[in-house]
Amino acid sequence: MKVLIIGGVAAGTKVAAKLKREDRSLDVTILTKDNDISYAGCGLPYYVGNVIREKEQLIVNTPEKFEKLTGVNVLTEMEVIKVNPKEKAVGVLNLQSNERYDYGYDKLVIASGASPIKPPVEGLDLKGVFFMRTPEDAIRLRKSIEKNEIKRAVVVGAGFIGLEVAENMAKQGVKVSVIDMAEHVLPGFDEEMSEYIENHLAENGIMTATGVKMEGIVGTDRVEKVKTSRRAMKADAVVLSIGIRANTSFLQDSGVELMPNKTIKVNEYLQTNIEDVYAIGDCACVVNKITKSPQWSPMGSSANIEGRLTAKNILGKNKSYEGVLGTAVCKLPNLNTGRTGLTEVAAKETGYNPISVISVVDDKAHYYPGAGSFIVKMIADKDTKKLLGLQVLGSGDVDKMIDIAVTAISLNASIDDLENLDFAYAPPFSTAIHPFAHTLNILQNKMNKEFDTITPLEFKEGKAKDYKIIDASISPTLKAAPYIDLTKVEGVLPEYDIDEKLLLICAKGKRAYMLQNRLKFYGYNNTKVLEGGLTFNEIDEEEE
Amino acid sequence: MKVLIIGGVAAGTKVAAKLKREDRSLDVTILTKDNDISYAGCGLPYYVGNVIREKEQLIVNTPEKFEKLTGVNVLTEMEVIKVNPKEKAVGVLNLQSNERYDYGYDKLVIASGASPIKPPVEGLDLKGVFFMRTPEDAIRLRKSIEKNEIKRAVVVGAGFIGLEVAENMAKQGVKVSVIDMAEHVLPGFDEEMSEYIENHLAENGIMTATGVKMEGIVGTDRVEKVKTSRRAMKADAVVLSIGIRANTSFLQDSGVELMPNKTIKVNEYLQTNIEDVYAIGDCACVVNKITKSPQWSPMGSSANIEGRLTAKNILGKNKSYEGVLGTAVCKLPNLNTGRTGLTEVAAKETGYNPISVISVVDDKAHYYPGAGSFIVKMIADKDTKKLLGLQVLGSGDVDKMIDIAVTAISLNASIDDLENLDFAYAPPFSTAIHPFAHTLNILQNKMNKEFDTITPLEFKEGKAKDYKIIDASISPTLKAAPYIDLTKVEGVLPEYDIDEKLLLICAKGKRAYMLQNRLKFYGYNNTKVLEGGLTFNEIDEEEE
Repeated sequence: MKVLIIGGVAAGTKVAAKLKREDRSLDVTILTKDNDISYAGCGLPYYVGNVIREKEQLIVNTPEKFEKLTGVNVLTEMEVIKVNPKEKAVGVLNLQSNERYDYGYDKLVIASGASPIKPPVEGLDLKGVFFMRTPEDAIRLRKSIEKNEIKRAVVVGAGFIGLEVAENMAKQGVKVSVIDMAEHVLPGFDEEMSEYIENHLAENGIMTATGVKMEGIVGTDRVEKVKTSRRAMKADAVVLSIGIRANTSFLQDSGVELMPNKTIKVNEYLQTNIEDVYAIGDCACVVNKITKSPQWSPMGSSANIEGRLTAKNILGKNKSYEGVLGTAVCKLPNLNTGRTGLTEVAAKETGYNPISVISVVDDKAHYYPGAGSFIVKMIADKDTKKLLGLQVLGSGDVDKMIDIAVTAISLNASIDDLENLDFAYAPPFSTAIHPFAHTLNILQNKMNKEFDTITPLEFKEGKAKDYKIIDASISPTLKAAPYIDLTKVEGVLPEYDIDEKLLLICAKGKRAYMLQNRLKFYGYNNTKVLEGGLTFNEIDEEEE
Repeated sequence: MKVLIIGGVAAGTKVAAKLKREDRSLDVTILTKDNDISYAGCGLPYYVGNVIREKEQLIVNTPEKFEKLTGVNVLTEMEVIKVNPKEKAVGVLNLQSNERYDYGYDKLVIASGASPIKPPVEGLDLKGVFFMRTPEDAIRLRKSIEKNEIKRAVVVGAGFIGLEVAENMAKQGVKVSVIDMAEHVLPGFDEEMSEYIENHLAENGIMTATGVKMEGIVGTDRVEKVKTSRRAMKADAVVLSIGIRANTSFLQDSGVELMPNKTIKVNEYLQTNIEDVYAIGDCACVVNKITKSPQWSPMGSSANIEGRLTAKNILGKNKSYEGVLGTAVCKLPNLNTGRTGLTEVAAKETGYNPISVISVVDDKAHYYPGAGSFIVKMIADKDTKKLLGLQVLGSGDVDKMIDIAVTAISLNASIDDLENLDFAYAPPFSTAIHPFAHTLNILQNKMNKEFDTITPLEFKEGKAKDYKIIDASISPTLKAAPYIDLTKVEGVLPEYDIDEKLLLICAKGKRAYMLQNRLKFYGYNNTKVLEGGLTFNEIDEEEE
């Protein structure tokens, strides 16, 4: 059997190597228009920041080494320009010789990846304009930084890669601003979480401007200014990271069905609509595991899973792929961010009846050096109690929290199923009440109406406007708000009517919860706790 | 309703505080024979190592603060000497005044904890003999180290606390040896994993001697020698950490049923055999979540879960507790260790048909600074494919791997359910193929007979004796074994008969797996890969 694979980065090399391991008699050929294969795309920003020192570390495999190791044929600088399913052949252009060939196949795997979007504006060819997709991109950018050519840079695009590049340039001493057309940085977080990240970045020297469109790059020989929908920004360099587009233009007239965003439509066996043609990796559109609606997952991790599975399916194992949770984790300056599953907004749009809570919990024993806080947003369905999503910010191991949620959501767990789990605890690693369990307990309290709150978003939207703010901190902290010492409440307070609307605020939310609990006992029925407290919310005391 | 709680550390304070939050009208009283409550027991070894600097950090709460915060009454220095369920009362001795009282209850919660076992040997009262159970124990030991009284110490007991103390004393410059009567250090690991830990500790300056009994402590004024079943060891100090015993002697004649190890027998609602009497924390015996057989879990994490649950159950919520997985995580010098679920031995004893694999996998992107390896043992049931247990060693975040397994095992997941999960990936956190997924894939290959192995234990037991060792490394590594370069195998090898028994060994197991795969294609049907390769196994080349 002859298997042709278009593309040789993560998905392409994975499916090829696994196929040959499953059956070495297969004739497996990778066609790639590049002259390298299998590079560490996710590592590029860290090469820019000199965290990864040698450029050789970015190359996972050379074509020669890969061929010897696996028995796969790798044909480089071969661009596929046409797929002809009727003849079971692809048309290929040799980029060296400019000759055209046809290659026949029994099975075809399209793993052609995606390319950075180039916006239709002036100035893209100026010196100092960079993309961040291939090792060459990263090498060029770092060289320019090290030659001291870049004092001030604008990163266009505040997704994971854009922010990682911004962090790494800042680490190298460059003054970095980030702009994005979207309303918020980092996709996949609810609004209030994104805003926290934006504030944090600003405090750490990286200004982000959202809702801002880049309209052009200006300069005589090299970049001098970036024109945006808001104002012009002086810069010596621009890194364009506004997104990627699937490399599927060669499929025009092939009959292979595409999605509106030009990714390839596949079924749960990663088959396209055309028999014997599969699509995997950044060029394919899989589904969301929870909603079963289409979801693009151009991630190295997805590419590997899809490649392994497709090798098995080509050999008749019929293994289905249930899809992704949109899991992502990203290191920012002094803040790690992670997310999986549905955001609260997406849960609502999908037809769930979501309930969420934002907790601020210790990430390891508070007395252990390096302990910090996790800010966790946990989202569940009110009706079925099914866990739907998790978003975590913190200086510690947010990936641990995310991976627990990935496992739980994938196994269709409800909040009740997740109660009382025997998680790992020792002071250097976690807390006696695990931060995941702690957040789960708080969400349960909220679902059981034992914890009545105003969420940060509701607070921002003015839902607490007719509430009197009460400082419930361990010692008086808010300048303009009256203070109540929880430990001294032993009955109805003469200062407050039991029907009075009181918004209880403390550092993280815990002490306010305890105060609410005690006030309830004495008949107060209109108190609310501000979730996330002063750690998460900005309290404008003048507003009271 | 009057609730009496015997004991005021983790379980006692948790149940008390939660009860008052659930219903402040309850009369909740803690009786404790100590004069402190709620200290950070798990942090004690780190105070010894000066990782936790101030002793105040070990105290979570004082009785006064706790009373004010929660409304619970705390009576210190009150030792319960008798429980009389017929009268619904306990007999108490005031340790200050030596007076006796009786306290009535509607509900009684026994959270009396456990105390260090004092072996019946001479010399326990010498200067330089330490236990490690209370803040005072840790404070005394550190003071003695800081006064330079301890050059050489013997820790008796190689459980989690014993090894943590050993690490922290070594960090302070003390030469530490650890002895234990058991066959291996750290309970809950299979033999080959424990041996790896023992070798690692020796390489890091902590000698462990197992199967060794302490027979006495010798000295005139202070410790000079420790007599053991093997030999006498010179020492300036002895730390006794040979285990704990539940504090239940006061329950004699109470009718409360005890287990053979003197812990209190409870049902899934944490009720004893006596109506209205609960037992939680270190003094109670819960069940293993997988086997449902009795399991003692004297851990701070279990205490908190049990306390919260019992508060709800006392108020009629009828929440059952499914038990523990024996989860544990421990920081050793340059090696973190974690475990959950059943060991392979325990799985066999329980009646499962276990299959396991040992993998050596990257813990984050190999090019990211600080990347290391996880050594993972994953255990599943061959018949049902149910995941049964996980043991992980490594310099990185072993707790993440364990918590994934805790979630999966608790949700009764099979190996198939766990395939293709969308775990968090970015280079600073993990690998594109997540180390948990990677190990799962290897186990699946083994279950599908695509990966034929000799396990480290089988190897040690001589199961590979009639196999010829083949060096399958990336470049020749073994001195006495012939080398096969995987990339050059293109057919039957003239040197080896296709029926020959070949044991393929490389650094971690991956390259040997690829060589096996290729040899199989050319007809070799008697090859085995040594799991864990040179990283995990000690190859005595003379044996060939």
